[in-house]
Amino acid sequence: MSTTQTSKIEIRKATSSKISGVDFENLSFGAVFTDHLFECDFKNGEWSNPVIKPYAPILMDPSSKVFHYGQAIFEGMKAYKDDNNDVWLFRPDENFKRFNNSAVRMAMPEVPEAIFMDGLNELLKIDQEWIQRGNGASMYIRPFMIATGAGVIANPSDEYKFMILLSPAKSYYSGEVKVIIAEHYSRAANGGIGAAKAAGNYAAQFYPTNLANKDGFQQIIWTDDATHTKLEEAGTMNVFFRINDTLLTAPTSERILDGITRKSLITMAEKEGLKVEVRPVIVSELVEAAKNGSLKEIFGAGTAAVISVIKGFSYQDVYYEMAPIENTYGALLKEKLTSLQNKLSEDTFGWTVKVQ
Amino acid sequence: MSTTQTSKIEIRKATSSKISGVDFENLSFGAVFTDHLFECDFKNGEWSNPVIKPYAPILMDPSSKVFHYGQAIFEGMKAYKDDNNDVWLFRPDENFKRFNNSAVRMAMPEVPEAIFMDGLNELLKIDQEWIQRGNGASMYIRPFMIATGAGVIANPSDEYKFMILLSPAKSYYSGEVKVIIAEHYSRAANGGIGAAKAAGNYAAQFYPTNLANKDGFQQIIWTDDATHTKLEEAGTMNVFFRINDTLLTAPTSERILDGITRKSLITMAEKEGLKVEVRPVIVSELVEAAKNGSLKEIFGAGTAAVISVIKGFSYQDVYYEMAPIENTYGALLKEKLTSLQNKLSEDTFGWTVKVQ
Repeated sequence: MSTTQTSKIEIRKATSSKISGVDFENLSFGAVFTDHLFECDFKNGEWSNPVIKPYAPILMDPSSKVFHYGQAIFEGMKAYKDDNNDVWLFRPDENFKRFNNSAVRMAMPEVPEAIFMDGLNELLKIDQEWIQRGNGASMYIRPFMIATGAGVIANPSDEYKFMILLSPAKSYYSGEVKVIIAEHYSRAANGGIGAAKAAGNYAAQFYPTNLANKDGFQQIIWTDDATHTKLEEAGTMNVFFRINDTLLTAPTSERILDGITRKSLITMAEKEGLKVEVRPVIVSELVEAAKNGSLKEIFGAGTAAVISVIKGFSYQDVYYEMAPIENTYGALLKEKLTSLQNKLSEDTFGWTVKVQ
Repeated sequence: MSTTQTSKIEIRKATSSKISGVDFENLSFGAVFTDHLFECDFKNGEWSNPVIKPYAPILMDPSSKVFHYGQAIFEGMKAYKDDNNDVWLFRPDENFKRFNNSAVRMAMPEVPEAIFMDGLNELLKIDQEWIQRGNGASMYIRPFMIATGAGVIANPSDEYKFMILLSPAKSYYSGEVKVIIAEHYSRAANGGIGAAKAAGNYAAQFYPTNLANKDGFQQIIWTDDATHTKLEEAGTMNVFFRINDTLLTAPTSERILDGITRKSLITMAEKEGLKVEVRPVIVSELVEAAKNGSLKEIFGAGTAAVISVIKGFSYQDVYYEMAPIENTYGALLKEKLTSLQNKLSEDTFGWTVKVQ
């Protein structure tokens, strides 16, 4: 990792650690945070005063633009500890690039690479005791940026706060996931912000997801808003479909997040000799494949769960479930990717980066 | 106004007022706030502890859901002081209803009417000295709700904060507005959150609006994202078009905000005997009308400016400007509506509500 300007990060250590009070066997995802956070403020046109300090509430003006106009973006990443107690990041350059792509789309300032990467690196070093080894344990990393400028007029803020939080995570099992295919509600517009990891994209999904939950479905597979015929993504995951022996996933677009797990799985699947087609996947094609038995698997791909197996889907009030099979592509790819991330297998792609 | 439960509002007065430091002749919209704000928190499934207290920063956990998943909604309203120093609200019931419609769509709890209305009423009474009379002066009111629950997992918060801020405003002159008609970017998806006054809807518009600004246009008229053929709204304003002597505006939908100024103008125009058609307005129809001279006026309608005259529009790199005319519908309706709001004319609609 880049260490340019590392020396500029002010370090304010916590006087005591909360770690002894944490039950690492029973972590709820995203609920527990480490002793420190990284913070850097954008004011007067520049980023300044990067600091690592004890995790604590922040003071915000009630008229802060993030509260009123929603300028807020984030990333989700993970760090892993190997058997030598070395800590590894997975493709952090991809998160960094995507973060700044999101920033541009939301009219927010880009974060310099040195601030993003050095903040990440130094914070992980300071709180490295919080990173557990093995059994799918990891450190979930949440870089985010919010508009802190005051004023209730709808224009871009001139002040921002960039922060990194760390939340220890155990192996994430999403349970048996049944999904519903969106027929009315939508996640993103053409020419909208669907490709940005913008806060507002998530809140927009809660109400339709609550409706789906009430009907017994854990997630929604979103479709294009104009015709509801193209399968897009699941809101916190990209989606893969296996029809016969071909793995299908939608191309990224301005409506679909360019998932890092998604692109890693495509590369990995191709290396394993699997046939992958990145092309629009049509709802009618999926229904037909489910009916004739050629639909073998559906899974979601994202940072939190890596791969979430989807058991079945509902469309137009009909529920389709795939017959269980052995040796799924999902299980193969999850094993390959998590082994690589955890440094249990050789990283022939150069995706893992050591924190040092 | 309802005064149920008023007695439950805790009042913590500021020890001194900032009012003497405010230049009321040179107010920047949304930048100055009064001495107090109203706050009420939602915890454990209920709203409790409503309080009016000095305007001051609030403490927020860095993992608050509003920062990460964008659960945030607001309203914009105005209060006016008449020549008897009585203070009047304009259709507050409409803002209250829309606020809770937005809350439902964003999976946030509805705010009880007594809390919304009594908070508004009591806050306006306490800071009534800040409300100026005449010359288009008003008090801009910003009720809003944010998700304060902690945790970086994408699901609805279980804690929320509802606040009301007051910002004194002078007559809002938006200048000569030239607009561009959206051909690529979009504000809202079918089945999305365009009809909600959700924070995320605004940040999404900043980048395309910046691009428009660079080309010399102050605002964008958004079109439907699927075909970019239907004229929808301007992001902070609904839009009216006068072709010959007919006033046209798009019907509200799940993509378009149900503007209170918009619906008041429609009612008022009809009462004035103007012909109003609420129907989809097609871009080609507008271009044709501009070319043949039947397009007489375009104006935006919203709380901040009431009516913003739009001088011309650009579409497919061609700029169209209307010939200046006397006795515009825009000027007539603005005069009628602001007179009513300021209690200078009789309110035959029952839209004004006294703060008492």
